[in-house]
Amino acid sequence: MGIVLNGGTIVTAADLYQADVRIEGERIVAIGCNIKQPGDQAIDVDGCFLFPGGIDPHTHFDLPMGDFSTSDDFLSGTKAAVLGGTTTILDFATQFKGETLKEGLMNWHTKAKDKCYADYGFHMAITDWNDSIAQEMPELIREEGVPSFKLYMAYKNVLQVDDGALLQALRQAGEYGALVCVHCENGDIVYDLVHEHITQGKTAPKYHPLSRPPIVEEEATSRVITLAQLADAPLYIVHLTCSGALKAVNNAKLNGQEVYAETCPQYLLLDDSYYSAEGFNGAKYVISPPLRPVRNQEVLWAGLKNRVLDVVATDHCALNYQGQKDKGLNDFSKIPNGAAGVETRMGLLYTYGVLTGKLTLNDFVALTSTNAAKLFGLFPQKGTIAPGSDADLVVWDPRKSSVIRAADLHQQVDYTPYEGFKQTGQAIHVFLRGKQVVQDGQLKVDKPTGIYLSRKPFLKRKVG
Amino acid sequence: MGIVLNGGTIVTAADLYQADVRIEGERIVAIGCNIKQPGDQAIDVDGCFLFPGGIDPHTHFDLPMGDFSTSDDFLSGTKAAVLGGTTTILDFATQFKGETLKEGLMNWHTKAKDKCYADYGFHMAITDWNDSIAQEMPELIREEGVPSFKLYMAYKNVLQVDDGALLQALRQAGEYGALVCVHCENGDIVYDLVHEHITQGKTAPKYHPLSRPPIVEEEATSRVITLAQLADAPLYIVHLTCSGALKAVNNAKLNGQEVYAETCPQYLLLDDSYYSAEGFNGAKYVISPPLRPVRNQEVLWAGLKNRVLDVVATDHCALNYQGQKDKGLNDFSKIPNGAAGVETRMGLLYTYGVLTGKLTLNDFVALTSTNAAKLFGLFPQKGTIAPGSDADLVVWDPRKSSVIRAADLHQQVDYTPYEGFKQTGQAIHVFLRGKQVVQDGQLKVDKPTGIYLSRKPFLKRKVG
Amino acid sequence: MGIVLNGGTIVTAADLYQADVRIEGERIVAIGCNIKQPGDQAIDVDGCFLFPGGIDPHTHFDLPMGDFSTSDDFLSGTKAAVLGGTTTILDFATQFKGETLKEGLMNWHTKAKDKCYADYGFHMAITDWNDSIAQEMPELIREEGVPSFKLYMAYKNVLQVDDGALLQALRQAGEYGALVCVHCENGDIVYDLVHEHITQGKTAPKYHPLSRPPIVEEEATSRVITLAQLADAPLYIVHLTCSGALKAVNNAKLNGQEVYAETCPQYLLLDDSYYSAEGFNGAKYVISPPLRPVRNQEVLWAGLKNRVLDVVATDHCALNYQGQKDKGLNDFSKIPNGAAGVETRMGLLYTYGVLTGKLTLNDFVALTSTNAAKLFGLFPQKGTIAPGSDADLVVWDPRKSSVIRAADLHQQVDYTPYEGFKQTGQAIHVFLRGKQVVQDGQLKVDKPTGIYLSRKPFLKRKVG
Amino acid sequence: MGIVLNGGTIVTAADLYQADVRIEGERIVAIGCNIKQPGDQAIDVDGCFLFPGGIDPHTHFDLPMGDFSTSDDFLSGTKAAVLGGTTTILDFATQFKGETLKEGLMNWHTKAKDKCYADYGFHMAITDWNDSIAQEMPELIREEGVPSFKLYMAYKNVLQVDDGALLQALRQAGEYGALVCVHCENGDIVYDLVHEHITQGKTAPKYHPLSRPPIVEEEATSRVITLAQLADAPLYIVHLTCSGALKAVNNAKLNGQEVYAETCPQYLLLDDSYYSAEGFNGAKYVISPPLRPVRNQEVLWAGLKNRVLDVVATDHCALNYQGQKDKGLNDFSKIPNGAAGVETRMGLLYTYGVLTGKLTLNDFVALTSTNAAKLFGLFPQKGTIAPGSDADLVVWDPRKSSVIRAADLHQQVDYTPYEGFKQTGQAIHVFLRGKQVVQDGQLKVDKPTGIYLSRKPFLKRKVG
Repeated sequence: MGIVLNGGTIVTAADLYQADVRIEGERIVAIGCNIKQPGDQAIDVDGCFLFPGGIDPHTHFDLPMGDFSTSDDFLSGTKAAVLGGTTTILDFATQFKGETLKEGLMNWHTKAKDKCYADYGFHMAITDWNDSIAQEMPELIREEGVPSFKLYMAYKNVLQVDDGALLQALRQAGEYGALVCVHCENGDIVYDLVHEHITQGKTAPKYHPLSRPPIVEEEATSRVITLAQLADAPLYIVHLTCSGALKAVNNAKLNGQEVYAETCPQYLLLDDSYYSAEGFNGAKYVISPPLRPVRNQEVLWAGLKNRVLDVVATDHCALNYQGQKDKGLNDFSKIPNGAAGVETRMGLLYTYGVLTGKLTLNDFVALTSTNAAKLFGLFPQKGTIAPGSDADLVVWDPRKSSVIRAADLHQQVDYTPYEGFKQTGQAIHVFLRGKQVVQDGQLKVDKPTGIYLSRKPFLKRKVG
Repeated sequence: MGIVLNGGTIVTAADLYQADVRIEGERIVAIGCNIKQPGDQAIDVDGCFLFPGGIDPHTHFDLPMGDFSTSDDFLSGTKAAVLGGTTTILDFATQFKGETLKEGLMNWHTKAKDKCYADYGFHMAITDWNDSIAQEMPELIREEGVPSFKLYMAYKNVLQVDDGALLQALRQAGEYGALVCVHCENGDIVYDLVHEHITQGKTAPKYHPLSRPPIVEEEATSRVITLAQLADAPLYIVHLTCSGALKAVNNAKLNGQEVYAETCPQYLLLDDSYYSAEGFNGAKYVISPPLRPVRNQEVLWAGLKNRVLDVVATDHCALNYQGQKDKGLNDFSKIPNGAAGVETRMGLLYTYGVLTGKLTLNDFVALTSTNAAKLFGLFPQKGTIAPGSDADLVVWDPRKSSVIRAADLHQQVDYTPYEGFKQTGQAIHVFLRGKQVVQDGQLKVDKPTGIYLSRKPFLKRKVG
Repeated sequence: MGIVLNGGTIVTAADLYQADVRIEGERIVAIGCNIKQPGDQAIDVDGCFLFPGGIDPHTHFDLPMGDFSTSDDFLSGTKAAVLGGTTTILDFATQFKGETLKEGLMNWHTKAKDKCYADYGFHMAITDWNDSIAQEMPELIREEGVPSFKLYMAYKNVLQVDDGALLQALRQAGEYGALVCVHCENGDIVYDLVHEHITQGKTAPKYHPLSRPPIVEEEATSRVITLAQLADAPLYIVHLTCSGALKAVNNAKLNGQEVYAETCPQYLLLDDSYYSAEGFNGAKYVISPPLRPVRNQEVLWAGLKNRVLDVVATDHCALNYQGQKDKGLNDFSKIPNGAAGVETRMGLLYTYGVLTGKLTLNDFVALTSTNAAKLFGLFPQKGTIAPGSDADLVVWDPRKSSVIRAADLHQQVDYTPYEGFKQTGQAIHVFLRGKQVVQDGQLKVDKPTGIYLSRKPFLKRKVG
Repeated sequence: MGIVLNGGTIVTAADLYQADVRIEGERIVAIGCNIKQPGDQAIDVDGCFLFPGGIDPHTHFDLPMGDFSTSDDFLSGTKAAVLGGTTTILDFATQFKGETLKEGLMNWHTKAKDKCYADYGFHMAITDWNDSIAQEMPELIREEGVPSFKLYMAYKNVLQVDDGALLQALRQAGEYGALVCVHCENGDIVYDLVHEHITQGKTAPKYHPLSRPPIVEEEATSRVITLAQLADAPLYIVHLTCSGALKAVNNAKLNGQEVYAETCPQYLLLDDSYYSAEGFNGAKYVISPPLRPVRNQEVLWAGLKNRVLDVVATDHCALNYQGQKDKGLNDFSKIPNGAAGVETRMGLLYTYGVLTGKLTLNDFVALTSTNAAKLFGLFPQKGTIAPGSDADLVVWDPRKSSVIRAADLHQQVDYTPYEGFKQTGQAIHVFLRGKQVVQDGQLKVDKPTGIYLSRKPFLKRKVG
C-alpha cells in the first residue's frame, strides 16, 4: 500500500537524523523506526541523505526573446530539473505591453500544460503598469494562486518600470498578500553605459560587465528597499550578486524591514574573468546582472550562511551558443542574456557549499527548498520532510561523483557554464508526490506528471 | 509499552505540522498518523503545540556571592525550569583563584548531584589563567564532557582576565574543540566609573546603569571579536544587550567569522527606566550588563529574527530583595548582581515574541532550544522533535493565560522582575527523556530525575 | 587715496589675528601694522571682526512660480543680502522646457541687470536635457562664465530629469570644467506620496514633510553619487538636510570621490515640529526638502565641523504668507515651496554656530564665504581677506545684539521663519570692491553697484 | 631695518596669492604690495612658494633604547629638520618608571638645551600612572608649557598602561587643558603574537608586521576613542596607519567627539612588501605600527584630503642599520623600532601629495604646519604667514628636483627608508623667527638658535 524508504539520513532545514520515511499516496505519513506496514514496498536508501525535493523559484522556460525563445521549454526544462533533484519550479509568466495580467498568465499556462515533469507555479512579471493592472492584482492572488509578482528596474524601454510604478505595485502587493520580486539594476545607467561602450567600438563580451558594474545593482537594490519601506510591503530581491547590494539587504533586515534575497550558483562559483574567455566564448556568460569580481563570492557565501540571503535559485534561461548567443558577435549588447542551471543547482551547492564547510546540510536544504516554499506560499506542502507534506523526496547518494559535461546533461542547450566542474553526490532517486520519477539517476516516467501549484497568499510580518 | 501524544501541532526550528508523536522509553521513535501500537498509552494534546524541551544555557544556581549563595540551588532552580518548559540547563562551574579546573568542576558536580529535575551540564568559568590551566582544558573537553568555557572581561580584580589570557584561552579552545563564552564589559572602565559615582555620593540603584553604559559593552564585544579572529576560534557572546554590540556581531558574521550571541528576556522586555523605581526597588534590576535604554529592544528583536542573535538564555541568578539585594542599600556597587528568570523564559518569549509577530514559532524553538543544543554539543539528542532524539517534550497550551506573580512561581526568590506581566500559553505537560515530569502544570515526580549531560566537542567551521 | 581699516581682528578660513587692512580702489593691497599711507582714510574698527564678504551660492530671486514670481527680486534681494553681510550671490538661471540654455541665461541677465547691490553670478538650471543642450554646455562654461549647472531629481513632470540625463550632464560637466549641483529628492516617490495624502484628505501643511520623508532624500543623494562616480565628475549636493544623506556624502568623500555638499540655516535651526504651527502658519515652513526631525540637526552641525558639508547657503526663495503661501490653504501641495533667508544667514550661523562652540570663527568664514568661492570659480578674487583680493569686507561687531523681526528686515516678504530668534553680532560696515555699501548697519549707496561675475571653470581633482 | 621677501606666492591653510612679506625682528609685520620700507633688505623669491615653517610634532631625538640611544640627538635632528623646511619640532619627554613627570621633563630639557636649530617643545610621555602623577599634570600644563601628554597602549611590561590609567589621564587632561596623544596598538595581543612567531622559528623581519596586524591597531583605536568619550576629553591618535582605525576616527568625529589623528609619510608611501627586502634589509622598516598592505594608502590619502586625519608627522626615530637594527638579526622582536624622516617630510608630501593632485597646497600647509600649531598651543605664533606671527618661513622652489639619498641627508643615520625616491621642490631658504637659518639649501648659522616653546593649554570644544 505504501512505500518505506529505509535507512536514510533525513535532512531538513533544522534536523539531521537517521529514520525511515513512509509514504502513502502523494503524502508522507510517518517517520520513525519500524514504521513499515504490511504490504508496503521497501526501498533501501542506506548511506544516502533524504532531502526535500528542490524548489527553484527562478526559471525562464520557453521565454520569447525577440525572434526566438529560450531553448529550454517546460518539457526539457522540468525534465532536467527533476534529474537534478528539483521537483518544483516557479517560472515567470510575463505580461507584455498592452496585455492584461490574466492574458499573460494564460499564455504561460498554455506553454506549461501537460509538459512538466516537476510541479510548477508562476510568478507574474508586470511590464506595463497602470491602474487597471493594479486592480487586477488581487484577482491573481486570490483566484489564480499567484501571490508573487516581478518588476524590472533594468531593461530600459522594454521591461523597466519607473519608481512610481514600483511603489504602487509594492503597496498593492503588500495590501493583498503578495510578494514583489525585483530585478535590481539601474536601467538608465546601463542603457547609457552600453551606448558609451558600443560607440567607442568596445563590442566584445568582456565589455558586458563593464556596462553594468556592481554599483548599478547596489544603487537599484538600495532604491527598491526604500520603496518597499515606504509601501510597507515585503520585498524579494532576485539574483543578488555583489557585496554592496548584500549590505543594503542586511541593513534593511536589521532595521526590521521584511526584505528577502536570492542568489544563484553562477554568482557563487564563476566570476568576471570568464568574460575574457578565448574568442567569443565570453558570450556564454552574458547574463544580467553579470558575473562579478571574484572577491564578491566570499561575501555571498557569508550572506547565505547568515541568512542575509534566503534562497539559491538559478535564473535558468537557456540560450544556445550557436545560433542564439552569436547574434551578438559584433555587439555584446545584442547577445541574448541568460544561461542554464536548473539541472546543476543542487549538485553544485552541495559540492561547493556543504562539502567545503561553508554551509551545513541544514543550510543547504533551507536554501534549495524550505525557504522558497515558505516565501512563495507552498509550505508545508512542499519544502520539508514531515508527515502530511507532499512526498517530494530526493535520495542523495554522497558517494557518487562526476564531472559536469554539457553532453551528459538533459538541459536542451549546447553548453553549460560549469563544463568540467567536479560534482560530488547525486540525486539517485527522486519522488514527486509519492511517485518515483527518477530511479538510479534515470528518468523513470513516460510522461510528465507535474501539476500546477495554486499557491497561498503571502502573509507579511505584522509586528505590534 | 509506549506513549503516543495525539493531535498536537509539532514545532521545530524549521517545521510546523500536525502529527502524533510516539515515545518508547527515553526516546521519540516515530512521528506520523496512526502510529499508535497496541498497548501504548495515548495522551490527547489536541489544540496544543509540541515544542522540544527548552534549553537554558545560562544559569547560576547555588553560586557563592561572598557571604551567601544565590537563592536558587539546583533543586529549586531546576524545578522552576521544568515547570516553565525548560528540560535542560547549563550552569557555570567556576574555577576560583588558585583552583584547578577539575577542582572547580567537581565542586559543581557536588552541588548538582541528585538535585536536578532537568538534565544538566556545565560550562567551565576560568578566572585564573596560566599555562597549567591551558593544559587542563583538553581533558575537560574530552573526558569530562565540558566543551565550553567562560571568561570575564568585567569584574576587575575578581573574575576579569586580560587580553593575553583571553587570546590564549580562545586559541586553546579553538584547537581542542570548545566554544569560549565571554562576558563583554570593559572591567577597567566599570571599576573607574563605579568609583567616580560613589565618590560623588551617587549611591542609588539608578547609578548602576550609568556606571556601565552600553559603549562599555560595545567596546569589549568588539575587542573579543578581534581576539577570536586572531585566535581563529569560535566565540559565543553571553547576554548581549545593545545596538552597538549587535552590530559588531553582525559585522563579524558577515566577515565569515564564527561568532554566536545570546540575549535574555530582561533585555528584550525591561529597560533602564526600571532603575528609577520607587525607594530601593531599582535594586531588583541590578544585573550586569544593566538594562538599557528602551530603543535597544527593537534592535535586539530584529537581531533575533535575523539570526544575528542565536540564543535566548536567562542568566538566572536569583537574589532575594530582602537580605541580599539590600546589602547595597547605601552603595549600589554592593548590591549583588543578578535576577531570576529560568521559569518565565519560555512564556515571555512566546507571549512577547511569537504572539506579537516579531518571531515565528520556528524562531521561538530555534532560540529557546535548538540553537543552544547545536552550539553546546547536545544535538540531536536535545533540541528537536525527531525520531531518535530524547523525548524531552513540552505540551504548550496556547489557550491558557495568566499574570506572572512571584507568589505563583517556583523559583526560590522573593520577587520576579516580571511581576504583573501577562502571559499567554502554558507548559501544561512536560516530558523529560520520556518520563512525564509536569502534568497539568504541576510537578508530577517525587524526586529529581535529571542527569548530567556529558557533551560533545564543538566542531568549528572549517572552510576550504 | 586708500582706506585703512584699523584695529580689527581679521578672520579667514585659516587665520585669526589683529592687523590693519589697506584698500586701494577695488582691491586689498596690504595687511599689517603701520601700513597707512599718506592721504589714506582711516576707519576705526577696533573690537570688530573683519570677515570676507559673505557668498550665498543658492538664491532664487524673481523666480517665476506659476502665476507670480518670488517676492524678492534682485533689487530687494541683494539689498537684504549686503545688509546681512553677503556681498556675492549666485542665483539659478533656469532653462524652461523648449528653451536653449542661452535663452534661459539671457532671461536672468535681464532680471538682474542694474539691480544688484551685491556682485552676482548664475548657475544654469537645466530642465530639458537633450543632445543640443549637451553641446551648448561648453559654451556657457567658456564664454558666459557659468561653470555650474543644476539638475533636479524632484518635481516630477516639471523640473525633474531622469537618471540618463543626469549621467550625461555630469559626464559633460566633468569633461568641460563645470560643477553639477543637484536637488536630491526622488520625485516619483514624492509625487505618489503627495497623491496618497491628498486623496486621503490629508491636506494640511503638516502633511508636507510626510510626503517627502528623509529617506526620499537619502535615496536620491546616494543615487546621484553613484551617477557622478560613473561619470567621473565632481558633484555638489544642494540643501542637504538629513543624517542618511550626510552619511552617503561622507562615504563618497572617503572613497576618494569629489563630492561637495551644502546645507542651510533652516535645517540647522528649525525642525518639522514647525509644520504643526497654529492654523495655516505651518505653510511658512513649506520648503523642499522639508524641515526634518530635530535629531538631524546635531548631525548636520558635526558635518559642518568636519568638512562633510562644505557650504552654508540659504535657498532664499521668498514667498508671502498672504497671497502666495495661501494658495495652498486647502491643499498643501499647492503651497508654493520656499522661504527667505539671505539677510539672516550670517547672523544666525555666527550666533548659533560660533557662539555655541559648534564652529570656530575659521569654520564660519570657510562655510559662509571661502569654500563657495573656491567651488564656484571666484577664488581668490572673492572669499578671503588677502592682498590682491576684492575688498569685499564685513566689519562684524560682536557686541551688538538684536532680535530678528520680519518688520526690521529688508527682504521683501511678509514674514521670516526666524521671527523672534535672538542674534548676537551685526555687520555694521560692509565694503563691496572697496566701496562702502553699508555703514552703521544702514545702506549707504544710492543705487546698486553690483556687477556680474564671469566665473572660472571648475578644475576637478585629478589624482595620478 | 626689516627684510622683505619679494614676489613669492604665499600659501596658508586657506589662501594662495602673490604678495610680499615684510619681517621686522622675529615677526612678520606686513603682507602686501609695495610694503618695503627704507633700509629694508630685499630678497627676491620670485617663482617660489612661501610656506609657514613646518612643524613636526612627533620626534624622538636622543631617546634611550636600552643600551644605546636613537642616533639623532637634538643637534643633528633639528639641523636636518630645518634643512628640510621644518622649523619647529615637538619631542616626547618620557617619564620612566619611578620618576615624576618633572624629573622626566628636566631630563629632556637637558638633552635639548642649546642644541636645537629649530624651535622645540615637549610632549610628556607617561609610563607610570598613579595618583601623584595625576596631581602633577596641572603643573606641567600651567607652569611648564606642556599641554600634551602621551600614553601607550602597546609595549607590554614597558610603556603600556591599562585602560584605567588611560581613562584617568584623559579625564585629568580634559579638565586641566591638555591633549592626550595615544599610541594605539593592543600590547597584550602583540606580546602574544610575537611570542607565537618566535617560538615557531619565525624570526625574520617579515614577521614583524604579522605580529601586529592592522586589527590590533583598529581595536586599540576604537577602545581609546571610547575611553575619551567617557572622559569627555579630546584625543589625538598618533601615527594612524590603516583603514579600520581611520573609520573609527571618522565615526567619532561625526558623532561630535573631539578626536584628532596624525599619520606619517612612511604609511602613505611605503608598504608591507618592504619587509621582504633582500637579506636583513627588511629591518630598516621595522617600526610600530608597521607598514601596511598597500591598499591602506589610498584610504589614508582620502583621510588627509577630508580632514579625518589632521596632521602629517614623522615619528622620527633614527636607528642605524649597522650596529643598532642588527641587534635583531636572529629575532625580529629585538630589532629596535623606528626610522628617520624629519628631513624628508615636507618634500615627500609636496611631491607625492600636492603634485599628484591628492592634496592642494592649502592642504599641504594645514597638514605640515597649521593644524599642529593649533592643536598643540602654538597658533598663531607658529603655523601661518600673517602679521604678528613668528617669521618662520620656508621659501620653496618648485623648480628644483632631486633624488633622495641617505648620503646627501643631514640626519645622523646610515640609511633612509626613501632611498632613491624622487623629490620635486626644495626648501632653498628658511627663516626662523626672522633669522635666515638656511640659504640656498645650506645651513647658514654657526650654532643653534632654536628656543624652547612654552605652549598654551588646549581649549576643548565646549558645545552648548
